[in-house]
Amino acid sequence: MIKLAIIDVDGTITDSSRRISESAITAIRMAQENGKIISLVSGNVIPVMYALQIYIGIRHEVFAENGGVMYYQNKIEKFFDREKTERFLDHVAGMSSVRGIFTNVWRYSSMAFEMEKADIEKVTAESVRWNLDLTDSSFSWHVLNKGQNKGFALRKLMEIHDLRGEEILVVGDSKNDISMFTEGVNRATMRNGDSELKNLSDYVSSKGDGESIPDIFHKFSLI
Amino acid sequence: MIKLAIIDVDGTITDSSRRISESAITAIRMAQENGKIISLVSGNVIPVMYALQIYIGIRHEVFAENGGVMYYQNKIEKFFDREKTERFLDHVAGMSSVRGIFTNVWRYSSMAFEMEKADIEKVTAESVRWNLDLTDSSFSWHVLNKGQNKGFALRKLMEIHDLRGEEILVVGDSKNDISMFTEGVNRATMRNGDSELKNLSDYVSSKGDGESIPDIFHKFSLI
Repeated sequence: MIKLAIIDVDGTITDSSRRISESAITAIRMAQENGKIISLVSGNVIPVMYALQIYIGIRHEVFAENGGVMYYQNKIEKFFDREKTERFLDHVAGMSSVRGIFTNVWRYSSMAFEMEKADIEKVTAESVRWNLDLTDSSFSWHVLNKGQNKGFALRKLMEIHDLRGEEILVVGDSKNDISMFTEGVNRATMRNGDSELKNLSDYVSSKGDGESIPDIFHKFSLI
Repeated sequence: MIKLAIIDVDGTITDSSRRISESAITAIRMAQENGKIISLVSGNVIPVMYALQIYIGIRHEVFAENGGVMYYQNKIEKFFDREKTERFLDHVAGMSSVRGIFTNVWRYSSMAFEMEKADIEKVTAESVRWNLDLTDSSFSWHVLNKGQNKGFALRKLMEIHDLRGEEILVVGDSKNDISMFTEGVNRATMRNGDSELKNLSDYVSSKGDGESIPDIFHKFSLI
């Protein structure tokens, strides 16, 4: 029986313009009423996840910065820091079109940025040299510490709530969700999901974006 | 004809636990589709308003810190600063049960805090001596610079969009919304609204919390 669902935000409970789905909100609240633990994980910043937790009414941990920072009950816990990622951003900004995005002021561990396509190869090579990870959320690029990813957040939740893989459902739509689509957990994506994720999934909803959440929750008996 | 609605957040588009109303989200999106300008104003911090703007899909300015800070298109504009309010918070924390809340780290102009009932009179007297304003959002106390209130945000919006009072709708539920319930604008509250606000309102919805938004928007022909 599934006891916990960990869900990506942008493109998963929202549409491609990041507008949240009213029916995803309803489904999340219903699942919680049924005693399920719902967690959100995003590349976005902690105060944004804090806001989503309040306004959706999430009762448990939420993760920002691709799993690097956790918020629960007025406490922010950071598992990685921003010293190295910030230095990397300064470095590549000096040699490419890379420009940090304004929400970096609220970041604790990773840095987000935009860049021109022509620079992707060069900046990726630099990240390898620096032993850092790059990820493209399709909303912006992120530079992350090694081991900082959504799979890390998944393992943290399993540890906190003492759960096994078969008791977990992961839901995501894009490549930066792959690290939590691990063996042994229940995996779901939706119509607009990345093809790699579709291949890894136990269930692909025929609905798109946030409209898929009620369907996926029914499929896995969370509601 | 109403061209712009400025709406409080907590208790107005949410329930008393701050969970956002799905039907308020739908109504706001519909009003925007109809060409109406929708703005939100709250005592909360800018990144929270940034998040609401993204996930609801608000297309225009939103205000945090009771009107002291504005967010629009990746730019934060602050109209007041935190130098004096922060000193005040330190001062009263040393002489009472006042404790700042953790989201103050994201504040640009005002400070939020909690205190025991017994200290309200003493702390209010200090705020008068310091020439600062105190307000109780019913979620926390706020210390604000003189002139920093939701009425300030209303006037800023009227200036930006070159609108007259009769083209504006204000919606709120509590005492800290009174500064925008000014003469000449259309004013609405709901079943759970403060009695003072009800007296000032042109329309009191029989619905409560966020469920009132579709009703109010119909009443004023926004949808």
